[in-house]
Amino acid sequence: MASKLDTRCYFDWAASAPSACAFQAPEFFANPSSHHSEGRAAKLALEDARSRCAAVLNVPPETLYFTSGGTESNCIALYSNLFRKAGRVIASDAEHPSVRENIEILERLGRPTGRIAVDSPGSVNAQLLEKALEKYGDVRFAAIMAVNNETGTVTYIASLKDVIRKQAAPVHLHCDIVQAAGKIPVDIPLWEIDSASISAHKIGGPRGIGLLYLRRRPDSVFYTGGGQENGVRGGTENTEGAAALASCLEQYAAPETVLAEYARAKARWKKLIASLLKTERCTLIPRERMNDANEDAFSPYILQAAFKGIPGEVMARALDDLGFAVSTGSACSSSSPERPVLTAMGVEENLRIEGIRISQGYTTTEEEIDLLLEAIAEVLKFL
Amino acid sequence: MASKLDTRCYFDWAASAPSACAFQAPEFFANPSSHHSEGRAAKLALEDARSRCAAVLNVPPETLYFTSGGTESNCIALYSNLFRKAGRVIASDAEHPSVRENIEILERLGRPTGRIAVDSPGSVNAQLLEKALEKYGDVRFAAIMAVNNETGTVTYIASLKDVIRKQAAPVHLHCDIVQAAGKIPVDIPLWEIDSASISAHKIGGPRGIGLLYLRRRPDSVFYTGGGQENGVRGGTENTEGAAALASCLEQYAAPETVLAEYARAKARWKKLIASLLKTERCTLIPRERMNDANEDAFSPYILQAAFKGIPGEVMARALDDLGFAVSTGSACSSSSPERPVLTAMGVEENLRIEGIRISQGYTTTEEEIDLLLEAIAEVLKFL
Repeated sequence: MASKLDTRCYFDWAASAPSACAFQAPEFFANPSSHHSEGRAAKLALEDARSRCAAVLNVPPETLYFTSGGTESNCIALYSNLFRKAGRVIASDAEHPSVRENIEILERLGRPTGRIAVDSPGSVNAQLLEKALEKYGDVRFAAIMAVNNETGTVTYIASLKDVIRKQAAPVHLHCDIVQAAGKIPVDIPLWEIDSASISAHKIGGPRGIGLLYLRRRPDSVFYTGGGQENGVRGGTENTEGAAALASCLEQYAAPETVLAEYARAKARWKKLIASLLKTERCTLIPRERMNDANEDAFSPYILQAAFKGIPGEVMARALDDLGFAVSTGSACSSSSPERPVLTAMGVEENLRIEGIRISQGYTTTEEEIDLLLEAIAEVLKFL
Repeated sequence: MASKLDTRCYFDWAASAPSACAFQAPEFFANPSSHHSEGRAAKLALEDARSRCAAVLNVPPETLYFTSGGTESNCIALYSNLFRKAGRVIASDAEHPSVRENIEILERLGRPTGRIAVDSPGSVNAQLLEKALEKYGDVRFAAIMAVNNETGTVTYIASLKDVIRKQAAPVHLHCDIVQAAGKIPVDIPLWEIDSASISAHKIGGPRGIGLLYLRRRPDSVFYTGGGQENGVRGGTENTEGAAALASCLEQYAAPETVLAEYARAKARWKKLIASLLKTERCTLIPRERMNDANEDAFSPYILQAAFKGIPGEVMARALDDLGFAVSTGSACSSSSPERPVLTAMGVEENLRIEGIRISQGYTTTEEEIDLLLEAIAEVLKFL
């Protein structure tokens, strides 16, 4: 086999990105809820961070709530349904575990819940959403992610708004944009979504900080305690984290930057995909991704690929030994061998077992792609 | 009035401590749930942090769960009751809003809840706990804080274990030790508590990281999504935060350090209290604190004092203008003028309105105490 690389090549950006935004000196150490000078300075720093995030995302600052990350943002949005007297909460079959598993908890707590089927590439289109809304007849909350974390499948959220608009009773559209923000063009006002989740550490920020966009403050909240963040998220505000997240959004999520980086990422991914498709043993997941015309239907930052006869775990381990970090499914479901999202997409069992996830980021180079392709070829020679 | 100080004197450590532990370089950027080398290194760093925390707290590492802070730790403990078929959840009347407000939510979700009355200093003793357990007859979970965040009142948690032990059906004892860890001697095994909450930023660590001790993993969790932290707390683990928290616990919460710092803090507080008691217009809250024999019944890091005829907000503002940061109640309830904890303690309305909270920390000096006393005297001359 090829010898180890001198440096490692990191292809697991979808799990966590290398840190890009330096931590700010924690000069705003005081509690932003305190009324003294130090507290007011911390509050100003927090609100400055909120305004900077709002400017990048093109939403009013008062619609943004700092949370501890994407999982908590999804949870707060979902649990705003806890005290609803009526109405069903549904989610697409391709959602992240932080949505899927908490929908199950809502169900156990007595809320009616339901599912939105995905098409074989793993996305929700207007017809599928309409079908789910008609089937249940009492849906008030629907969670649909913008970019799937395992396959990179894009759902065109903007294409869903007409279906949402024409419902007699309002349907809250929640959108997990954790793998979309800073990666593909995101336009919250244009998409007309009611809430959205963002995680800092997926775009170079620190762990422990995220954002929840809420078009309207929910009537009911859970997990409170102290009235911070307008009562939507309790706990002393993470001022340093908020400032770091704002810096990352400014650095990577401004529309023009996203487009420029998208083009570069796409060029690198085109090269990777073209080479992989020459490998007889490689199947892309979903298969639709093997069709060139579909390229914008998938994020150019994530690729799920299966290599015939090699379980994903084995391939990931072999590549790791050669100096490459790739994963199989989501890191957030690494403790389970099941691949429920791929199952929902109708992916056959052998492909589900053989799938690996390759994900890139802002500093990934063409040379790293070449090295990865060489390493995959090496592994295929021996396994 | 006296002129402003050249430097500020910070007396709001109970709201948030100045940062003491430098942030580690985020070299362990990878997702600890990823299986590749970078992920395994991050996992090792996370588990190293957990082991270091466990060593300081004298508990098994597997009983510690990293959370986003004290509020979330309290919430996870409380919401472990969500799917219980039977049994009441009670809390002392002196609890932090993150316990008090979430007990109300549990009640709205159909769990029977209840209250443990506090004595006039604001603590729970064995008789009061026993009375509450007998009154309800179906209690399975009791939340009792070790040190009150507004008054510094200490509850001797170890004195409650006999009452807990003799219950026919097991009662889970949850202890908010946010203002106790690193401040007063804490002994989780000796106290025989079932769960405890810690916040890093109260002991010099960063915001966005905390600990939950759980003697046994709960049967049911809420707010999940990804299986991290043994399924108890979803979301990508905050490795840097965990390492910083471990460093702070090692620096401040080791038993011998706590005792040494406690003696120093007590000496400074004795001086402050003795001088304040010479001021005719000053009343300490609770009044029991004015009795010298009671000194270990209160944390020497927190003092609640009222100045006759001066609303707490006005006093805090005047001191702020002179260069001193003090607060009124908890920063976590700064948005509300009510003082429910003081009300539960039976503190009269005028004292509730006049109360300010002075809180010190590891780097507070005698000179700062002198300056604060001078400033208070100045304010009293004019107001």
